[in-house]
Amino acid sequence: MSARRVVGVIGGMGPDATVDFFAKLVAATRAGSDQEHLRIVIDNDPGVPDRTAAIEGRGESPAPRLAAMARGLVAQGAELLVMPCNSAHAFAEAVREAAGPVPFLDLIETTVVATRERLPAVAAVGLLATDGALAARLYQDAFEAAGVRALVPLGDDQRTVMDAIYAVKRGSAMRGPANRGAADDAVRARLRLVAERLAAAGAEAIVAACTEVPLLMAEGDVRHDGGVLPFVSSTDELVRRTLAEATGEG
Amino acid sequence: MSARRVVGVIGGMGPDATVDFFAKLVAATRAGSDQEHLRIVIDNDPGVPDRTAAIEGRGESPAPRLAAMARGLVAQGAELLVMPCNSAHAFAEAVREAAGPVPFLDLIETTVVATRERLPAVAAVGLLATDGALAARLYQDAFEAAGVRALVPLGDDQRTVMDAIYAVKRGSAMRGPANRGAADDAVRARLRLVAERLAAAGAEAIVAACTEVPLLMAEGDVRHDGGVLPFVSSTDELVRRTLAEATGEG
Repeated sequence: MSARRVVGVIGGMGPDATVDFFAKLVAATRAGSDQEHLRIVIDNDPGVPDRTAAIEGRGESPAPRLAAMARGLVAQGAELLVMPCNSAHAFAEAVREAAGPVPFLDLIETTVVATRERLPAVAAVGLLATDGALAARLYQDAFEAAGVRALVPLGDDQRTVMDAIYAVKRGSAMRGPANRGAADDAVRARLRLVAERLAAAGAEAIVAACTEVPLLMAEGDVRHDGGVLPFVSSTDELVRRTLAEATGEG
Repeated sequence: MSARRVVGVIGGMGPDATVDFFAKLVAATRAGSDQEHLRIVIDNDPGVPDRTAAIEGRGESPAPRLAAMARGLVAQGAELLVMPCNSAHAFAEAVREAAGPVPFLDLIETTVVATRERLPAVAAVGLLATDGALAARLYQDAFEAAGVRALVPLGDDQRTVMDAIYAVKRGSAMRGPANRGAADDAVRARLRLVAERLAAAGAEAIVAACTEVPLLMAEGDVRHDGGVLPFVSSTDELVRRTLAEATGEG
């Protein structure tokens, strides 16, 4: 226990993605009792200004709010910070500065490294991300530096991705399998088609480069040429890395 | 937005119950975007000493740790405190003192009031709770004061309830429908039998008086005399009350 690090979660972007990250982190922890689980402090602040709007110059910067959350979590005892929102990583520098000596696990770097390790033969990936994350080139530059080509949905297809992500944020697309309606199935089906067109354009794996995407799509959902396309969830990769770093079992 | 209150969650008892409360609170919030959701700060500290052991005089008191969590959450901005663990309410006074002027929504009171409102004709309920919660008479006294008889499982049946609750805490009984194994189905089946014996003894409704129980049992699961017994989930009632108090729509 004593060697374990307290995890601080800069969350709320959106709340469903934070719930998903928290649930997966708890589920992934090997524990024989409450007391063997990790301490996790969460600031689920959905009031953080919209990341895509800020990146596109249409809205207020979320950086001061993200920095304040980082400071608050460190004050609460966080010894390791994570931010399960890819687009917000356009403002990661502000978080790093606010965190001071407390390490911040970068979600983009984590996902790119995990993709290279899991899928060393893959030369091109398809990105499902927000307009903001794409405009900031968070994943394109990181994959390029790792020698992997990053394909993005074009035109209407990228609008479909944004519609799907904001449907989750509205809470209409994901309330657990029991409450899923026909409208949500349609959102999922359209997103799957976008992923399949990325595959047709040369993507050998799909990267859920937005933490809302794994709420709509899972490994096995995207098919191409009679096979199943590998699927990399940025949420799941951050869970794995957080657990490894927090428990020292990395 | 400005009228909404920041919710502070004293959590980690156990982590799965905190995930469940958080997920249900987010899902229950009517919101058109991230920014319309509630800010929720969570201290998921599974290191809090075991509540039942403390109540039975076999272990350290969790009160100082609970008070510290309350103070930390208030420092983080919490304007309303909740603690989704029934047994920990044996130490609610310490939380109330630490919270100062910040209101603390009592889970026991919330559940008893909701039971009376939803089921005014019910004269006797069956409690599924920890040994600690029963020894502290948290629900028995509150239901008695409300004119409702509270029945508790006897002997081996109460041991079955404790085994089921601690199976959730070990993480073996609940990892979502996809990962549920035969062992977990057996835990659920045994818990259902205990509830049915409470019904046979006169309980007209089952109260999940432990926040791990709704992870194992739901409305419709408990049958008696060819009908379905009403089921009151303390987690769900706390979600409803929290939402009402935080949004001012109560």
